[in-house]
Amino acid sequence: MNKDIRSIQTTVVLVEPIGPLNLGSVARLCANFGVQELRLVSPRCDPADPEARRMAVHGVAMLKQAKQFSCLLDAVADCHRVVASCGRLDHGNIPLQTPEQAVPWLLESMSAAPVALVFGREDRGLTNEELQLAQRVLTLHSSHGYPSLNLSHAVAIVLHELQRCQGQGTLREGQSAWPDPASPRQLDACLTDAQDLLLEVGFLLSHTAQARMAKVRGLLQRAAVRPEEVALLRGMVRQLRWAIHSRHS
Amino acid sequence: MNKDIRSIQTTVVLVEPIGPLNLGSVARLCANFGVQELRLVSPRCDPADPEARRMAVHGVAMLKQAKQFSCLLDAVADCHRVVASCGRLDHGNIPLQTPEQAVPWLLESMSAAPVALVFGREDRGLTNEELQLAQRVLTLHSSHGYPSLNLSHAVAIVLHELQRCQGQGTLREGQSAWPDPASPRQLDACLTDAQDLLLEVGFLLSHTAQARMAKVRGLLQRAAVRPEEVALLRGMVRQLRWAIHSRHS
Repeated sequence: MNKDIRSIQTTVVLVEPIGPLNLGSVARLCANFGVQELRLVSPRCDPADPEARRMAVHGVAMLKQAKQFSCLLDAVADCHRVVASCGRLDHGNIPLQTPEQAVPWLLESMSAAPVALVFGREDRGLTNEELQLAQRVLTLHSSHGYPSLNLSHAVAIVLHELQRCQGQGTLREGQSAWPDPASPRQLDACLTDAQDLLLEVGFLLSHTAQARMAKVRGLLQRAAVRPEEVALLRGMVRQLRWAIHSRHS
Repeated sequence: MNKDIRSIQTTVVLVEPIGPLNLGSVARLCANFGVQELRLVSPRCDPADPEARRMAVHGVAMLKQAKQFSCLLDAVADCHRVVASCGRLDHGNIPLQTPEQAVPWLLESMSAAPVALVFGREDRGLTNEELQLAQRVLTLHSSHGYPSLNLSHAVAIVLHELQRCQGQGTLREGQSAWPDPASPRQLDACLTDAQDLLLEVGFLLSHTAQARMAKVRGLLQRAAVRPEEVALLRGMVRQLRWAIHSRHS
């Protein structure tokens, strides 16, 4: 068994979890599957709740050390690859993958930076805006009749898939078809910059900006846009801005 | 979509479950994954317990209809294939398989009789004698440090594997994978248009144009850029060109 041939740092991120039982269960699962860190975005329950601690069992240290963030972008800011889980049917046109497609992609990371698995609210999942902070979005196989899984069970399935992929050692050292994408903040800054220019030239109006830029973000996330490509795009924006201003003055 | 080509009747059997939360969770999972029947061997908790019902959510009918048996042999008496789950390390010399080995074997049944997935006690699992009532015994992938999963999470992982095998790795109806990309000519025309603009503003020089535009093409191809996204990009180029010229004149 080659469990630890790749020292990938895996982070599980829960967005606004509401149930202490779920929170504790997920902490236990993180310990069960060798996840390095649990991060919480604006949890709606207390990680110190006795029910959470009871469910965590030997994962209670994971629960105590869980860092809290006020938004998902902050929570994944240092993560080089981000995969989100989606159980909703109305996910716009964000392409969905099976766990066995998305999880190996997460593990292809060549970087020492953490990779993230993001799970949404028990009742409403992740918003489309949050899904677009991930390069890949997965959905689980479940029954047509009642597809909605409990949060901790979804986490169990995805982490088991992660463990399975790591144990197989199927990834050959030094080979990755997909280099690590740009960091979440790099991408965000690039999109803000482009948005400013496109507002300036009247391609975007204030009431259309968000929807149209979400399309651009979706496109770049599907491509898992690379740092050097973000630099290329920012160079374009800079030169276009210069051309507009210099000719005007 | 080949979800239901094989009308295999799947039964989940829990041996002496002690926790009502687990019992309810497993009933929900049975509903989530289209399991036909839940059977209980000498449960040490009450299926009518309010905590069990609360966790079952839309799987409460499964919980109410769960049949009880006094021993595992009775519970699997009519099952033509039996796979048991084993988390213990001291399983004698009973060979263990991975879920992806054992579950497809269960589905190969040619009979109309049910097949069974058996899970043991939260604290002690199944005895070797009980394991030997199964033709195959599976064990989950988990961390060496803390391999012991919560019962319902083990059930979630195995049932998801079952659903995956039955669905042959496809997504549910109505869920988008990757829609067809824009046609080669559409993409080419868009890139030519953008290149002209970028030459005009001096971002590209004639000797760098080809290499840099190849990078942009690579990015768009990885995203499998869609026809409507190509239209969006061309709209940007048009508006930027207009902004440059209108201010110049």
